[in-house]
Amino acid sequence: MNPSIVEAFEPLFYPHSLAIIGASAEPAKFGNIILSAIMEIGYGGKIYPVNPEGGVINGLKVYGSLQEIPGDVDFAILTIPAPTVRGALEECLRKGVKGVEILTSGFKETGSPEGIQMEQELGQIAKQGLRILGPNCFGVYCPESGLTILPGQNFSRETGPVGFLSQSGGLCADLGQVAKGLGIRFSKMVSYGNGCDVGACDLLEYFMADGKTSIIAGYVEGLEDGPRFMRILAENRGKKPVILWKAGLTATGSRAVMSHTGSLGGSSAVWIAAFKQAGVIQVQSAEELIDAIYAFLYLPSGAGPRVGVLGGGGAISVAASDSLERLGLSVPVFSPPVLEKLRPSFPSVGNSLKNPVDLGNPMIPPSLLRKVMEAAGEDEGIDTLIIIQILYYILFQVRHQQGMDERPLSQFSSQPELLTACQEVKQKYGKPIILVLPDISTDARMVDLEIEWRRQRDNYQAAGFPVFKTLDRAARALSHLIAYHRLRADSAGR
Amino acid sequence: MNPSIVEAFEPLFYPHSLAIIGASAEPAKFGNIILSAIMEIGYGGKIYPVNPEGGVINGLKVYGSLQEIPGDVDFAILTIPAPTVRGALEECLRKGVKGVEILTSGFKETGSPEGIQMEQELGQIAKQGLRILGPNCFGVYCPESGLTILPGQNFSRETGPVGFLSQSGGLCADLGQVAKGLGIRFSKMVSYGNGCDVGACDLLEYFMADGKTSIIAGYVEGLEDGPRFMRILAENRGKKPVILWKAGLTATGSRAVMSHTGSLGGSSAVWIAAFKQAGVIQVQSAEELIDAIYAFLYLPSGAGPRVGVLGGGGAISVAASDSLERLGLSVPVFSPPVLEKLRPSFPSVGNSLKNPVDLGNPMIPPSLLRKVMEAAGEDEGIDTLIIIQILYYILFQVRHQQGMDERPLSQFSSQPELLTACQEVKQKYGKPIILVLPDISTDARMVDLEIEWRRQRDNYQAAGFPVFKTLDRAARALSHLIAYHRLRADSAGR
Repeated sequence: MNPSIVEAFEPLFYPHSLAIIGASAEPAKFGNIILSAIMEIGYGGKIYPVNPEGGVINGLKVYGSLQEIPGDVDFAILTIPAPTVRGALEECLRKGVKGVEILTSGFKETGSPEGIQMEQELGQIAKQGLRILGPNCFGVYCPESGLTILPGQNFSRETGPVGFLSQSGGLCADLGQVAKGLGIRFSKMVSYGNGCDVGACDLLEYFMADGKTSIIAGYVEGLEDGPRFMRILAENRGKKPVILWKAGLTATGSRAVMSHTGSLGGSSAVWIAAFKQAGVIQVQSAEELIDAIYAFLYLPSGAGPRVGVLGGGGAISVAASDSLERLGLSVPVFSPPVLEKLRPSFPSVGNSLKNPVDLGNPMIPPSLLRKVMEAAGEDEGIDTLIIIQILYYILFQVRHQQGMDERPLSQFSSQPELLTACQEVKQKYGKPIILVLPDISTDARMVDLEIEWRRQRDNYQAAGFPVFKTLDRAARALSHLIAYHRLRADSAGR
Repeated sequence: MNPSIVEAFEPLFYPHSLAIIGASAEPAKFGNIILSAIMEIGYGGKIYPVNPEGGVINGLKVYGSLQEIPGDVDFAILTIPAPTVRGALEECLRKGVKGVEILTSGFKETGSPEGIQMEQELGQIAKQGLRILGPNCFGVYCPESGLTILPGQNFSRETGPVGFLSQSGGLCADLGQVAKGLGIRFSKMVSYGNGCDVGACDLLEYFMADGKTSIIAGYVEGLEDGPRFMRILAENRGKKPVILWKAGLTATGSRAVMSHTGSLGGSSAVWIAAFKQAGVIQVQSAEELIDAIYAFLYLPSGAGPRVGVLGGGGAISVAASDSLERLGLSVPVFSPPVLEKLRPSFPSVGNSLKNPVDLGNPMIPPSLLRKVMEAAGEDEGIDTLIIIQILYYILFQVRHQQGMDERPLSQFSSQPELLTACQEVKQKYGKPIILVLPDISTDARMVDLEIEWRRQRDNYQAAGFPVFKTLDRAARALSHLIAYHRLRADSAGR
């Protein structure tokens, strides 16, 4: 642990006051977007817009320069042309600012000698007593203090266990939106861009030490100091899970990394092997990253690889078998005594009771599904349950829409009854349960189905059950969780 | 071509009248769901519910038996207990019925000697002059005649070029819903279940001969006659694209196939090699299947593998490079003259103009994006354009929601302007353009963003541009299309 880094980063994440240098009244400019975002999310400290033109923006007095601000300023956000950044940083030093984020681009990532030179100068100034994020970044989102990135004005104000570091601001902007509905909450999310001062190594070290972070996730393109990154990961081994998307592993991707943040991508095989060695959960897309975080949030460390797959619609169970086996999970046949116990409830009409359990009907009554859940709960050969539910309420939904049924939609849904069954089975047998609710609504005229889907998902999530849209995604996320805990147990056992 | 099969299958797809044997007034029963579905979708022929109990269901007179029906019956839908199916088929023969679908399960898929025996008997009866779909299926969806599967009462009534055959009814039910919003329209969709009479081979042959089908897609678990299937595929080579999800290729999956429809899964490597040889587009999930159909519908055969990726948010361009290269596509650097022409419009601030083109800002003005589109259009080294657009209107959306802006939402969106640019660039340079619009809305309280997303997607689709939610999915679908047409050109050249 490293308490000093927590202290050093305090002004970046918990400033009492901040200045926006380059604040603007023009809605499309970064200098307006970031100011509005921080005001809208509800930052509690003092906000000082700075612009030589003065005036008033969003009801706040604009100062002509940093020095004109009467009070102390902890933190400065820079959205001014690249050639003026250096001077502004020197002003920051004079004003006693401790943390800076530079949204401005036009530095190392241009590949031009001037850009590279300018960025080196920023790094030099940082050594005189500033911690700098960026340049070419979207900044910090810290729900606890009310800081947010551009454009993150509607991110959740709830704080949570996920610490996220990203060389890409665009990914932060996406992730903050997607996270909202999934109940994924952040301690901090940091877009660090080119990383002229604070980089992936520092942020990894910070999140390891930060008492408010228990799951670390990140998107990195190049690494400023590979050996240091690996040392920090080695120290973290067995402590906090690290979910990492290392992009730029192909030849073209590596070239794009160079253009994007000016860092070197590095050889694919070397990174993959080194990360594996360090116990890192490696992902290759935003979707896989989000799903892995989601699994770590909602599933216990004891989730095991022997899966009972229960649902209706046969392709789904066959697909489940293929998909789980490809990911190293198994779908073992129920034990004979469990099968014998089940049989009386299921006269053999189109039902496979072996596992995957295909109840042959996409509209399965929850009472019937519950019997199979109990059996899978009881079976000592099954670790984890995946319940697939499709279409049950579409039929009723449509009838309702067409005025063929007057009852409110919630009456038609089997989901509340199934949720109760999930809770009781989980309670009784202690096995994790994952829901797969395919989201088949695409029609612009059927958005109410989407609304209903989200409502049901929220209910499951509130009760602690993760909900995935496809079985492939559920299986992949589960396999990441299992691989991580298996590796962790193996190294603890040595 | 095989005109006789088109004629033979006429009563299955275009019946003038149909009987539902086992029609029921109980809403949860198949005998009610299928009757209601066919009425709701608006089948235009005569519908005769049959049930010994008589009475009236959904306003229709119920006949005590098939023989009591006064008029002719072309087609019968059976939803009665398995042991009574044989007798009903004999009644059908006496009544002059030509086509039957058997929704009932409890046959070969149970694995029991009785089930297998009963199914063999059905196959025998078929030879006396019936074409039978099922048992253990969800039936036929044919928008042209107004037939639909269970539960497909709200499927589109528009007809289209996709012929879909599936051993799984659940997958048909999903696909019909998902297809709606994507503009994927079907000539016929057939869930054939255990396939006691009509199987994958017959349906493949039918779709090859059917003048209304130009894209064939299917989900098969086992195949009743592998060599025949391969012969039909060989005949089709170079004619209609066949997109196939062969499930049950893993050991567990193969076991599940056995339980599901009682067919043998077969060895993975053998199938994969044989399908490849036959020019089949092979997919492994419902999502991949849908995306491939979608690409064949919206993209021209000339879409090439050298992709220009244009958008904002760097992770997206780096990820694009990785993702495209992994799928055998390339992201070539723009040619020097094109680059020179672009430079004046983009003072080098955070922009990579090489390709992927990262405009460094998730809120790119369409006028700027258009310049890069023109350049990629002009560059002879680029075949296909992928445009990534994120978040542009979220910011405005939220302000609008919060009452900070009174203008209607559509005013904020850059999409109409971008759509015009896409149309003009496509027109001018003749290169296909694919949109990637990440769908980042998950929050139950932000469904209006989803509504807006679908509206924009519909606009692009109506203009002939496909819209994918992730770049990975776009790239995978494109790579399927390219591989198919390359193989086709290669064999034509021999």
